[in-house]
Amino acid sequence: MQNKLNAGRFFEDFSLNEVISHATPRTLTEGDSALYIALTGARQPLFCSQPFAQSLGYAKQPVDDLLAFHIAFGKTVPDISVNAVANLGYADVRFLEPVYVGDTLTTRSQVIGLKQNTSGKHGVVWVRSTTVNQHHVPVLQWVRWVMVHKQRLEAPSPETVIPTLPTFVAPEQLSPPSFLNPHAACAQVSGGAYFWEDYAVGERLNHRAGLTINDSDHTLATHLYQNNARLHFDAHLMQSSAQGQRLVYGGVVISACRAISYEGLENALSVLAINAGSHTAPSFAGDTIYCATEVLDKWPLANPAFGALRLRMVGIKNCLPEQVSTVKEADSYHANVVLDLDYTVLIPKKGHTS
Amino acid sequence: MQNKLNAGRFFEDFSLNEVISHATPRTLTEGDSALYIALTGARQPLFCSQPFAQSLGYAKQPVDDLLAFHIAFGKTVPDISVNAVANLGYADVRFLEPVYVGDTLTTRSQVIGLKQNTSGKHGVVWVRSTTVNQHHVPVLQWVRWVMVHKQRLEAPSPETVIPTLPTFVAPEQLSPPSFLNPHAACAQVSGGAYFWEDYAVGERLNHRAGLTINDSDHTLATHLYQNNARLHFDAHLMQSSAQGQRLVYGGVVISACRAISYEGLENALSVLAINAGSHTAPSFAGDTIYCATEVLDKWPLANPAFGALRLRMVGIKNCLPEQVSTVKEADSYHANVVLDLDYTVLIPKKGHTS
Amino acid sequence: MQNKLNAGRFFEDFSLNEVISHATPRTLTEGDSALYIALTGARQPLFCSQPFAQSLGYAKQPVDDLLAFHIAFGKTVPDISVNAVANLGYADVRFLEPVYVGDTLTTRSQVIGLKQNTSGKHGVVWVRSTTVNQHHVPVLQWVRWVMVHKQRLEAPSPETVIPTLPTFVAPEQLSPPSFLNPHAACAQVSGGAYFWEDYAVGERLNHRAGLTINDSDHTLATHLYQNNARLHFDAHLMQSSAQGQRLVYGGVVISACRAISYEGLENALSVLAINAGSHTAPSFAGDTIYCATEVLDKWPLANPAFGALRLRMVGIKNCLPEQVSTVKEADSYHANVVLDLDYTVLIPKKGHTS
Repeated sequence: MQNKLNAGRFFEDFSLNEVISHATPRTLTEGDSALYIALTGARQPLFCSQPFAQSLGYAKQPVDDLLAFHIAFGKTVPDISVNAVANLGYADVRFLEPVYVGDTLTTRSQVIGLKQNTSGKHGVVWVRSTTVNQHHVPVLQWVRWVMVHKQRLEAPSPETVIPTLPTFVAPEQLSPPSFLNPHAACAQVSGGAYFWEDYAVGERLNHRAGLTINDSDHTLATHLYQNNARLHFDAHLMQSSAQGQRLVYGGVVISACRAISYEGLENALSVLAINAGSHTAPSFAGDTIYCATEVLDKWPLANPAFGALRLRMVGIKNCLPEQVSTVKEADSYHANVVLDLDYTVLIPKKGHTS
Repeated sequence: MQNKLNAGRFFEDFSLNEVISHATPRTLTEGDSALYIALTGARQPLFCSQPFAQSLGYAKQPVDDLLAFHIAFGKTVPDISVNAVANLGYADVRFLEPVYVGDTLTTRSQVIGLKQNTSGKHGVVWVRSTTVNQHHVPVLQWVRWVMVHKQRLEAPSPETVIPTLPTFVAPEQLSPPSFLNPHAACAQVSGGAYFWEDYAVGERLNHRAGLTINDSDHTLATHLYQNNARLHFDAHLMQSSAQGQRLVYGGVVISACRAISYEGLENALSVLAINAGSHTAPSFAGDTIYCATEVLDKWPLANPAFGALRLRMVGIKNCLPEQVSTVKEADSYHANVVLDLDYTVLIPKKGHTS
Repeated sequence: MQNKLNAGRFFEDFSLNEVISHATPRTLTEGDSALYIALTGARQPLFCSQPFAQSLGYAKQPVDDLLAFHIAFGKTVPDISVNAVANLGYADVRFLEPVYVGDTLTTRSQVIGLKQNTSGKHGVVWVRSTTVNQHHVPVLQWVRWVMVHKQRLEAPSPETVIPTLPTFVAPEQLSPPSFLNPHAACAQVSGGAYFWEDYAVGERLNHRAGLTINDSDHTLATHLYQNNARLHFDAHLMQSSAQGQRLVYGGVVISACRAISYEGLENALSVLAINAGSHTAPSFAGDTIYCATEVLDKWPLANPAFGALRLRMVGIKNCLPEQVSTVKEADSYHANVVLDLDYTVLIPKKGHTS
């Protein structure tokens, strides 16, 4: 009798250029959007006000970019990272088309890099994942790389291929919706007075809100994303781990920071790209997450009413952002930093909003 | 560079008669309604059975009155009460029109009273808030008053204006839906045998159910309402507060009591008004909420098939309602009382239900 | 004045053949489905992918069978089991028709058996409950029996009637949807390679995932089902109980096991019947639930593209399934076993899927 319990792929099971189709197509609903607000406190009006979305030109209510991302990402976990030693990072995450309530997302991944560790016990796998909607239109695309256990140590080492990845998604490769209308009432709707012109490269915002993670809410979120990595859910298993307890899924921390950073970035309507990201330390239930934002760059976009801001989102636990003046020194992160995420947002220009 | 992190309004920032438009219009969905049931255990059939709602004459599924209220209220927090020392009370809360799934709510507030404290360090601000739907029809209106910090102590003291507020919303000012049909099957649908005629002024009901609040569920609820008051979410911050921990948003306690009071008030279809309310002590995760109801008054309504009951909802923590025979003595509340809410409900008359 | 607080029925209040109509008809929404995923981590694609459901022939998105069951069941609690000493078991649970998003469920129960205990202080009540949708079509039917307190000990003992119940729902009484299309892409959609032919009677699967229950998520789930049994919600009350704490509703454990057992049973599309079930020990917040499945029987169905598997779902807490080789010895369960459920699932046949 076959062992029907899929142990997942080990390093030797990945081949260069192979395409893996992930299971569980997922229809996104108003229920997901309501839960996302409850789980994060998100207030971005594009995702909670249908009239505002329609006034910008959206046909229907779009789903929060990060909710779509976490669900799309969750689909890859059983095939890619269930035997991961570590999630090493992501890059070149592009939000290509709006995802609407009612859309069904399906994800596939292509292996674009492989590198066996010198120990021969692990290897790094790079995959480019693409999520399409029910019309087969790509809506999301990203690269991530993970270190995975090798199970059959005698399996031959694959040729080392390390993909070249962009430091950031170039402005000409961003995909803001082509239909976007200039918006006169944006400041009123968002409660924020600042627009593209108001942000200066080098500026830092120490957001004031803190969000304490609880056992139940981080597992609810991770289940909602249908991410089945056991270390988020199984306290019995994790008792004997180095951490002694369940780990919070990194996506929960990203979403907490996005919600916290609303104050000061009220008009950052949506996420256009995640340029790079790493989870620099684990988070646990009971931790309080804070966030600082640094403005890394700013670009105009083809649509004259909108621009893009490239931001650094620094997630910090259990101490205020103003207490973390140096996020990273040499190669070492401040002990309270849990997330270093480089991303790009869409924001209206001032001249077109009043 | 401007400080883009809005510290919120202090006492000297409010002017009499000023109108403040609050951010984040919010579209209510079936997701919000499902979450509200999960967060409270509400069983009022008007809000969970579409055929019942339609048989009463509602065009679509309405949203629980208190869910709509908490969301409408949440919008005012960033502008009104983020620097509040204390929420002193609310009055004249009127539920003007049904709120339906799909409606988008927007709230504005007018400053109707100001009184600087004799210390000069704080002041009381009265605001009347109005929530409209996407058709600009007012659906909710209420007055609340909060004590707010003064930041620039040298700012001149405003002229003291204390608004006259009604003790309760008079029966002729209640706004039950004009279309309501008499309902023959109400007792069957609600599971409750008692109607308007059965309740006597002075009667008290000690509801039996208790609901223990958990960290995760009170923060989920408060996030769902997009209420961003930090003291509900930030355990790190609250460690150094007088309470040493996160406070439960008062609206969570109101909704818990409304759900608990279902037994004995099964046919109280909806809330027509909140006449007055105060949170008499804080609640924390781990507290178990109980509820007693006192019948304060009863009125017929223009629609001969329905009447109104004016009720006192007493929220009690960690002891049974029957152990709190005296809710308030002189000006002092029983130590376990956390909520004293005077409200008015719509209830069918007996002669029209069988 | 009447005591309006319904204490619920005691043993002497049940009469043989009596029909009890339960309150609170409930419209199921996308919000319920999203919450169910968040609360359980369910990944069965029939309930989260509308295109997949439609490709099988479903007109709309169906609701997870167990979500529908828990909600239907919850309606019976105030009338049947609120004074229960123990829920003794269920049998003959039949899933008759799909339940769709938008359907409204109403439940009634008929008393089909009564047996007073020799002590005279309690009695066992058997009820057959039937749930219909808004078109009055039965969608669910089940028998359960509970031991209930007798309040008026002097009330006469009823004639003892013990209903004959089937050990399992016979294959010819199963009601898979008549419209089901053979499905070529099922393995891709579910991520599972195994079909009806691949499972052997006697086979056991020790599922790998564990799910730790938290206070907030089990109460959210039980509230979502509008099950008002106080022992799940009231920690103050339960402090003085034998267990000293809130009990987890058994339905929460069933759903956890169904979600956990996805790995290895990916193509078990839906539940056709629950043949028998008992909660063999209580579960509490903090417990980690694991699951083992035993294949009890397998039958072809009239539709040549599908078959049925009769499975035993063993819920285990705080130890791995492989550590529980003997679930039950003589009449005694392994100390870590919390659930022994015999159920039947619908699964495609291999020849029709590729």
